[in-house]
Amino acid sequence: MFFRLTTLTGIVLLFGAIGMAQEVAPVEDWKPAITNQEGKEFPQVNSEGRVKLRVVAPDATSVSCSFRDSSAFVKDEKGVWTGYTRPLDEGFHYYTIKIDGAEVPDPNSKYYFGAMRWGSAVEVPAKDKDFYALKNVPHGQLREVLFYSESTKTNRRAFVYTPPGYDRDLEKRYPVLYLQHGWGENEYGWGGQGHASLTMDNMIADGKAKPFIIVMTYGMTNDVRPGGMGNFDISHFETVLVKELIPYVDANFRTLADQPNRAMAGLSMGGMETKTITLRNLDKFSHIGLFSGGSISMDDMKNTEGFKEKVKLVFVGYGGKEIGGGGLRRGGDPEANAKSLKEAGINSHYYVSPETAHEWQTWRRSLREIAPLLFARSHE
Amino acid sequence: MFFRLTTLTGIVLLFGAIGMAQEVAPVEDWKPAITNQEGKEFPQVNSEGRVKLRVVAPDATSVSCSFRDSSAFVKDEKGVWTGYTRPLDEGFHYYTIKIDGAEVPDPNSKYYFGAMRWGSAVEVPAKDKDFYALKNVPHGQLREVLFYSESTKTNRRAFVYTPPGYDRDLEKRYPVLYLQHGWGENEYGWGGQGHASLTMDNMIADGKAKPFIIVMTYGMTNDVRPGGMGNFDISHFETVLVKELIPYVDANFRTLADQPNRAMAGLSMGGMETKTITLRNLDKFSHIGLFSGGSISMDDMKNTEGFKEKVKLVFVGYGGKEIGGGGLRRGGDPEANAKSLKEAGINSHYYVSPETAHEWQTWRRSLREIAPLLFARSHE
Repeated sequence: MFFRLTTLTGIVLLFGAIGMAQEVAPVEDWKPAITNQEGKEFPQVNSEGRVKLRVVAPDATSVSCSFRDSSAFVKDEKGVWTGYTRPLDEGFHYYTIKIDGAEVPDPNSKYYFGAMRWGSAVEVPAKDKDFYALKNVPHGQLREVLFYSESTKTNRRAFVYTPPGYDRDLEKRYPVLYLQHGWGENEYGWGGQGHASLTMDNMIADGKAKPFIIVMTYGMTNDVRPGGMGNFDISHFETVLVKELIPYVDANFRTLADQPNRAMAGLSMGGMETKTITLRNLDKFSHIGLFSGGSISMDDMKNTEGFKEKVKLVFVGYGGKEIGGGGLRRGGDPEANAKSLKEAGINSHYYVSPETAHEWQTWRRSLREIAPLLFARSHE
Repeated sequence: MFFRLTTLTGIVLLFGAIGMAQEVAPVEDWKPAITNQEGKEFPQVNSEGRVKLRVVAPDATSVSCSFRDSSAFVKDEKGVWTGYTRPLDEGFHYYTIKIDGAEVPDPNSKYYFGAMRWGSAVEVPAKDKDFYALKNVPHGQLREVLFYSESTKTNRRAFVYTPPGYDRDLEKRYPVLYLQHGWGENEYGWGGQGHASLTMDNMIADGKAKPFIIVMTYGMTNDVRPGGMGNFDISHFETVLVKELIPYVDANFRTLADQPNRAMAGLSMGGMETKTITLRNLDKFSHIGLFSGGSISMDDMKNTEGFKEKVKLVFVGYGGKEIGGGGLRRGGDPEANAKSLKEAGINSHYYVSPETAHEWQTWRRSLREIAPLLFARSHE
């Protein structure tokens, strides 16, 4: 939004800000990022949330990165370029580096799928990172499964999180959460940068959430180009999910295969998918989670037969830095909607992630917040 | 080895070869590689096994790739560089691109761990690629598990392949193959570029292999730098595998948890690990597979108490293009060793992968060859 200012005041502010970014020296407490490849010293992150990048490019004349307002990259006598970013929000950020006009992944980073490509990302440690830390608690499994989809004539991938103990007590059956990524992302997101498994392992160990299965598959959202969401036909994915994947999961995992024990949640465009699919299939889903992806209004409720009887939870989460944007209010103010639903007797929850935007830290926290609410009232 | 020639003849040959590579025009039947990121048209592979790379680098003055004897990269008026390789062996090859001296991953490729980094690779379709093709057959699962290792005080990752049907018949128990990657690689290799799951799914569907579990974990081989193998202390990994991972797997999966039903195999340095660990732990392992990683001699047999009674299979595989190299014969000629063992009454098999070198196509085929031999004589 910064660069959209076109008034004279805006231009003055713009130059002022760039000048300032260059003047203020970063705090020199850099540490290697946890998103680095094994043994790599860079990228580094400091206590301000700045990221310092290092690129070995001896013959290059220009090196930069995709983070706006970054410092100029400086080349040393060995041909090593370094530059650093403005302070970033805590959490996970995709980026690229640019070497003489070529936009490429940083060879020092691990690779994640987002923004429509496998590429670099960096983690700025969050104050609350403990909830998805790898601890010595009982761990569930993240399983890659392939299921055949008759409607698309393809073998499709899903990841299935099974909670700790799933393979020990072979009598026990579990509720299921279908959990969707956003536009530009895919089925690897929640199990990778989303840390869904570790979040659940930790919450189950602490007694904060009931054990449940999580199923993550590709939401076919990337057929939609930015700005062209109006053309997205959700029915293809709805068929894959409702008619093919759910029966596959119920046949191959020890699920509680009924409506009270089935939830769907998703982030951003996955939230929009969740809203559409759950409201059209309330015989299948009882718990609904929308993370930075719309909300459910009184009109939605009134227009959906059986809503009040069938819906056991509506959870809406947003990042504190993204609320207020006009686009996000399509369908009404999410907080007001959540409040109206609650007053109408729905189990409605609204969550705002402090100081985060439309990014993974918002969605990791949204999962943490929804988990204790899922299937809390179901009986097994 | 080509560039090691220092005689006048060598230099003449060298220049001759480069000249030839530039003169022969590639066959123009390029197709996008299956290792490309979704929707990317490059890299492309032709029927000769050449790979054509494309790099958008408008301001660069030099672009190249890590495949030796590649063509010069040519820049068009839009700043797009293209170049192509010599004909490569069929199978899977790691590579990097270089832009004005910066060695980076190709943004068009998916990323794989090998050569000590997550980076680019390209698949040259093999004539026998069908055995690891994704087909509409019952599929097993590839599970990411985390186990606590007391000896290293770390939570460690393993991937566990469970065969089709594992979650349906909850009474059935399975033999287990512990399968190791090579130096510079990690626990993602066999489940990723190794296509172990698809190979097994297809072979089980065809009745060519018995269903068994495969366990893949990090062999700690990357602590050894090239040329420094003498310093590698295998005992740390041996403890993790034998004292920690095996009990974990036997406690958390429905294994046949006895020596006749436990195998170990590995590629390259993972083969060396397999040889050392199995021969030291014949109370734990009955089936041994070495893929491009040494062989077992009569001396080995004689020096290992109980070998003849306890070892039910010795499988040795190599790539046709790598045998004959002096380094690989350490411990004796593998074919002669295999023959001697067989004559001594051991169930000994020797396999040579046609026209492949020290690369994944050799190891994929080695898995295909060993699979029918594993646990073939065990009773459940």
